[in-house]
Amino acid sequence: MHSETNLSKLKAVLNEINDLIAILGLIQWDQETYMPHGGSLGRSHQLSAISKVIHLKVTSPENGQLLEDLKPYAATLDPDSDDARLIKVAARLYDQRTKVPVEWVSEFARITGEAYAVWEHARAESDFASFQPYLKRIVEMRREYASFFEPYDHVYDPLLDEFEPGMKTADVQEIFAWLRPRQVALIQAIAGRPQVDDSFLHQAFDEKSQWNFGVEVITRLGYDWNRGRQDKAVHPFTQPMGLGDVRITTRFLPDYLPSALFSTTHESGHALYEMGVDPNLDRTPLGRGASMAVHESQSRLYENLVSRSYDFWVFFYPRLQEYFPSQLSTVPLKKFYASINKVAPSLIRVEADEATYNLHIMLRLELEIALIEGKLEVADLPQAWNDGMRDYLGLTPPNDAQGVLQDVHWSHGYMGYFSTYALGNLIGAQLWELVNREIPDLSKQIQRGEFATLTGWMREKVHRHGAKFEPQELVQRITGSKIDPAPYLRYLTEKYNRLYGL
Amino acid sequence: MHSETNLSKLKAVLNEINDLIAILGLIQWDQETYMPHGGSLGRSHQLSAISKVIHLKVTSPENGQLLEDLKPYAATLDPDSDDARLIKVAARLYDQRTKVPVEWVSEFARITGEAYAVWEHARAESDFASFQPYLKRIVEMRREYASFFEPYDHVYDPLLDEFEPGMKTADVQEIFAWLRPRQVALIQAIAGRPQVDDSFLHQAFDEKSQWNFGVEVITRLGYDWNRGRQDKAVHPFTQPMGLGDVRITTRFLPDYLPSALFSTTHESGHALYEMGVDPNLDRTPLGRGASMAVHESQSRLYENLVSRSYDFWVFFYPRLQEYFPSQLSTVPLKKFYASINKVAPSLIRVEADEATYNLHIMLRLELEIALIEGKLEVADLPQAWNDGMRDYLGLTPPNDAQGVLQDVHWSHGYMGYFSTYALGNLIGAQLWELVNREIPDLSKQIQRGEFATLTGWMREKVHRHGAKFEPQELVQRITGSKIDPAPYLRYLTEKYNRLYGL
Repeated sequence: MHSETNLSKLKAVLNEINDLIAILGLIQWDQETYMPHGGSLGRSHQLSAISKVIHLKVTSPENGQLLEDLKPYAATLDPDSDDARLIKVAARLYDQRTKVPVEWVSEFARITGEAYAVWEHARAESDFASFQPYLKRIVEMRREYASFFEPYDHVYDPLLDEFEPGMKTADVQEIFAWLRPRQVALIQAIAGRPQVDDSFLHQAFDEKSQWNFGVEVITRLGYDWNRGRQDKAVHPFTQPMGLGDVRITTRFLPDYLPSALFSTTHESGHALYEMGVDPNLDRTPLGRGASMAVHESQSRLYENLVSRSYDFWVFFYPRLQEYFPSQLSTVPLKKFYASINKVAPSLIRVEADEATYNLHIMLRLELEIALIEGKLEVADLPQAWNDGMRDYLGLTPPNDAQGVLQDVHWSHGYMGYFSTYALGNLIGAQLWELVNREIPDLSKQIQRGEFATLTGWMREKVHRHGAKFEPQELVQRITGSKIDPAPYLRYLTEKYNRLYGL
Repeated sequence: MHSETNLSKLKAVLNEINDLIAILGLIQWDQETYMPHGGSLGRSHQLSAISKVIHLKVTSPENGQLLEDLKPYAATLDPDSDDARLIKVAARLYDQRTKVPVEWVSEFARITGEAYAVWEHARAESDFASFQPYLKRIVEMRREYASFFEPYDHVYDPLLDEFEPGMKTADVQEIFAWLRPRQVALIQAIAGRPQVDDSFLHQAFDEKSQWNFGVEVITRLGYDWNRGRQDKAVHPFTQPMGLGDVRITTRFLPDYLPSALFSTTHESGHALYEMGVDPNLDRTPLGRGASMAVHESQSRLYENLVSRSYDFWVFFYPRLQEYFPSQLSTVPLKKFYASINKVAPSLIRVEADEATYNLHIMLRLELEIALIEGKLEVADLPQAWNDGMRDYLGLTPPNDAQGVLQDVHWSHGYMGYFSTYALGNLIGAQLWELVNREIPDLSKQIQRGEFATLTGWMREKVHRHGAKFEPQELVQRITGSKIDPAPYLRYLTEKYNRLYGL
């Protein structure tokens, strides 16, 4: 009885914390969608203030005592029950956050709050020098953050762990070491084959029609407009503010159709995940995705394995042609399909094809680790970026906007995040193999524009659990093995064998 | 030295509190602009959580001790200095808020967070019954709020004081008692004169053109787009989130031009005020308008005394005709001017002309006082509203959407607010008499579309002081007398004498 009172108290504390985290989400959403430029400095103070409040609540002695008192009770519960997992995850967060001083949290929120506007401007002007002092400070603070977790196996581990609970740098490096030569070999094989002519994708496409088609697609995928909305942002993202309000953003290139299209299906994958979490977990630390990699497994799956598939366009291509008759009426489906799957090394990660995408990630991971290890100075980063791009993809960015400044993540202080995209690709392929075995006519359903069974399967296997299980455990439970690069390589090889006649 | 350290500490506390209040502002702005319907329940919890955090910070023993320790130091300062006023206002807020239990604050935020969505729906459906239980609870909680401030002269005083520091119910009632028969006599005199034909205002006006013209107008009035933005909302409002981010909202009627136009200039008056506060006061309780009445003096001044003036349209009417040639090219300026100043009793407060507007306010004040005194039940409110409308304006609303449900305020829990609109009209007229004496060619400047001197004068006399002075003190300092209804009556009488040949 006493323990149940404590559990109620803990839940009340966690509810409040998660309400404040939802507010933090709104602040970040607003900063990237509608905030006027003049709000930037005030916003950095606001981010600092709310981050401090959240940190102090998470690390409060009251919270710590409740968690301590609940340990014996938790041991009596079914270890897979919501309550047992809630106590476990809350204790994990408490242990993690109490290692970090509130002054660090407050200052990091302030500096990254300022850095976003500086990055936005630096990217527009391709002016790395203006962003450099902010990035230098962010790297310094990230190294300081790692130091709070000493001893560690690797200085990058605490950063990775923030986005990918339980994952180690060595694990990621091992996976990437297996994958890299195989992906490079595939890309080289493709480079030896005749290339597809995708020039029809590079012409004027009315933004309003792009918007409307994207809305039609994700509505059919299952995006719930009662619990969300779509807005424009410099760098597309999904922002949940509790399970009743899961917003997505997108951006448009006026002269390249695939950009907004696949960004929209990507974000809808994130949103379907959050919208599919068991409502009983709302307002708790379990009421969100398990990790960034599991999140990316959903976004990359809906972006690529679903919306870059031939089946998908059997249904949607006639509709797309209706939106853009002058651009597409003479382009056959097969050519369209080949074009949106064209493999060619490119400068911008978010526009990259599936075969080269992971190489962009591997470069970022390498650079981040070097920065955090202190082996690379921020001042030398643009050169290191360009060297890496040549090394990995054989390209040299013409400017920093298309190079080191392209991604928003570092301005937010997200270091440790990038590898989760590649891990997400791998998990996505593992899930894809399984779902196709378990739903034998999935291909036919997609050809008919039916996604309810697919999304229902994802909801049952992945979404509803929220953050109850750590990513490796979740993947193991669903697929029977941990994160495994082989299915992804099989998927890529089979797809491009067909497309490029390898 | 010790006192200066305490002052720095106090400022740090106040900065954090005001950063959190800015966040509360963002939450409210989002709720009325972009939040999807499904976010409503979560939002009520978020409002509750942040309100609780703010309340606990304002009433913290640390804050109280700092304020107590600073009393002797404050006595040595110039009483008009920023620091002396900051300590005074912070102490006033501390004393006021410590009377209110945090449980009340948290619950009131939650219930009003839910009530907004309920009101929005009730208004759309003209369904008072669905809003009634929420309003009943809000009235109960407002009565409970008043009880925290016992003893008081009048049960309504603590509510009024929240929006209008230092103002008493008896003061407002005295002013209204003087004004009401005189405004009624004026309206009756007008009713005896031939009426203007304003039917050309009731036709289709393209929304995009309405938007663009409004933007052109308020840009010229001095609205700073770097520190703001305009969005659509069901009920227009201005939301500051610190001095660098002061947003306005508007709404459009597709078949009635004046609605959006004057709502836009109204909100720009609020925004100019906030944008004109001395930047040194940002992130403190002085970094905002002095009170709602002083705020309304600015919004009602820019809406009416400026943008409903003949001078204003000498400049802007040719531009408006360019936006709407088919609707306006054959309408002469004099007729347009007479039409936007047509006096006729009407159902909706925000659309009311200047002569009848205050009667809408007097009705609301009377009803609010009766509700808080317990002399009127919420269940009987629609009938009391309709009776009052007949009594004050000779009209009966055909439904509750155009009656008791028209205003957003009660759904937010704002009881004690409405009279500040009428008081703002009075202060605005006092300022208008003075500024026309001090800038003899103001009329000519406005005819040339020049507003820099006018807005500069307002900035110097009103805006820059922020909340340093209580409203009566501020008005006294600027005009030499307290809030006085006579200038407003002189203004109305002179204006309508000319327009209606009284």
